[in-house]
Amino acid sequence: MRLLCALALLALPLAPAFAQEGEPPTPASVVAEAPAGDWRAIDPADLLVMELAPDRDGAERRVIIQLLPPPFSQGWVGNIRALARAHWWDGTTVYRVVDNWVAQWGDGEDDGEPVKPLPEGLRVVPESEYVSTASAGDEGAIILWHPRDYVDDLYADWAQFEDGWPIASAISEDTRSLTSWPTHCYGSVGVARDLSPDTGTGAELYAVIGHAPRQLDRNIAVVGRVIEGIEHLSILPRGTGEAGVYADPAQRVPILSVRLGDELAPSDQPRFEYLATDSDSFARYVQVRANRSDPFYKVPAGGIDVCNVQVPIRRVAAG
Amino acid sequence: MRLLCALALLALPLAPAFAQEGEPPTPASVVAEAPAGDWRAIDPADLLVMELAPDRDGAERRVIIQLLPPPFSQGWVGNIRALARAHWWDGTTVYRVVDNWVAQWGDGEDDGEPVKPLPEGLRVVPESEYVSTASAGDEGAIILWHPRDYVDDLYADWAQFEDGWPIASAISEDTRSLTSWPTHCYGSVGVARDLSPDTGTGAELYAVIGHAPRQLDRNIAVVGRVIEGIEHLSILPRGTGEAGVYADPAQRVPILSVRLGDELAPSDQPRFEYLATDSDSFARYVQVRANRSDPFYKVPAGGIDVCNVQVPIRRVAAG
Repeated sequence: MRLLCALALLALPLAPAFAQEGEPPTPASVVAEAPAGDWRAIDPADLLVMELAPDRDGAERRVIIQLLPPPFSQGWVGNIRALARAHWWDGTTVYRVVDNWVAQWGDGEDDGEPVKPLPEGLRVVPESEYVSTASAGDEGAIILWHPRDYVDDLYADWAQFEDGWPIASAISEDTRSLTSWPTHCYGSVGVARDLSPDTGTGAELYAVIGHAPRQLDRNIAVVGRVIEGIEHLSILPRGTGEAGVYADPAQRVPILSVRLGDELAPSDQPRFEYLATDSDSFARYVQVRANRSDPFYKVPAGGIDVCNVQVPIRRVAAG
Repeated sequence: MRLLCALALLALPLAPAFAQEGEPPTPASVVAEAPAGDWRAIDPADLLVMELAPDRDGAERRVIIQLLPPPFSQGWVGNIRALARAHWWDGTTVYRVVDNWVAQWGDGEDDGEPVKPLPEGLRVVPESEYVSTASAGDEGAIILWHPRDYVDDLYADWAQFEDGWPIASAISEDTRSLTSWPTHCYGSVGVARDLSPDTGTGAELYAVIGHAPRQLDRNIAVVGRVIEGIEHLSILPRGTGEAGVYADPAQRVPILSVRLGDELAPSDQPRFEYLATDSDSFARYVQVRANRSDPFYKVPAGGIDVCNVQVPIRRVAAG
């Protein structure tokens, strides 16, 4: 019965846009008007700062990745923290770039041997950690999972936002359980692997640089998302070797360093905030994105997919 | 009544995947096994061949765009043919590139004056041409629009494929009419415009280089898609000026020429085929893409969005 109640609550429509005076709202205006209390700080300890070698013009290239919070993919996220603390990625490369698909870096050897010894203590993570499952038998568990707002989804029963992240969910009446998983959207970072799901340690990562490859959901571990500097990956030349690997090793882009944000000097620690996805501002933002009424748009879409929502994230001055 | 009948037919499931011997099918294996009769030639007269200036390493950069067939956007497509025949784009530039959004070229002046005089005879196209509408009063019209296969869509009542193109459709019970329109997917080419829908002549075009911006559907004219060389646009540096325009004019990428395919010497005319979207092979391809069962995939998605289908297109030897 609890499952059915959950579904009924989910059927509530999105919050209507607030009444406006003057100009119709835009996604940007909703974000600009969001009160300070609707923003949440991102802990620098949850950021990976990846420095690529300077480009041909000598410009620095810094990519900042936010790691996924519990309960998702935490076995891999733990490995990634260990790899970063060991400075393991320093000296590895971005070695594979496929148009409308991914840019991939780290442990690029395909013969099963890592490019250099992995730090001790990495976990072998089972594929069960691709998802989080709550049983209707757990008192209150399903209630906790009620999304405040949700969007329709073609790859799940629905999608919602949890702590700023796009999450897909499906209810099984057979097992009386709710299964949820992080979605592959533009900028999502995942754990490359071989055929067996437990072969991905986290040493080899990719970022999505094209249309959301949602077929990868529940098949590869999403562990984070690029929140700044995705263009340093998305504009890289596409590889012409097998599966988009750079045919000429000279094309590989050296990674100077990857650090957890809290390993940097305090003045260098990147400070970001995301718009709380349980806030009125976010509900309004989704509504306005799905029903654009500013002068450029003549016909509101009347719908939106979870990867087109794009949770607002902003840089803030060091605290 | 006809409208309701149409919807009932649409509710048929996708064709089941054929029984397999040995390995499970992949999208690539379905395409490889498609009989010759399931492929359709693309007329070189329906292609735009855009030559960009060579890159910094001297490599040629050729982008090939297929123009959208009737009944969609034909006013703009006619203008684009006239602009190509006048060699109007020669000497213009790619001047705006926005990550996860578009690369834009052609008439880049923002003050309302074109960069050079436009050829005579271009049409001012009304926004009504963004869509195609069939009334239930037109005997048989709705029947003609029954998609053989369709996919669920979050931005319309459904999406289907017509002559190789992804098309979204909505039925209005009020007006007893069916409205259909081409979708914005990765690689789609559209007509940039100012606030008024009739301001886009076709001289200023963009290609989508990110997650499908479906909110642009019915708001801007889709006129084609890049079928080869999208990487020459998607890897361009992102603009740092207003709205992603290149701040330094020196960053603009010169366009050497844009030609209709049939203006080239016969031996230079690009030859392509697409997998007929009313074929058994295509139905099977969609089914297999939505339910991957090859060894890499542990959980089939069980769904697909129209922009993730990616109609197979292949180059063929000159006839």
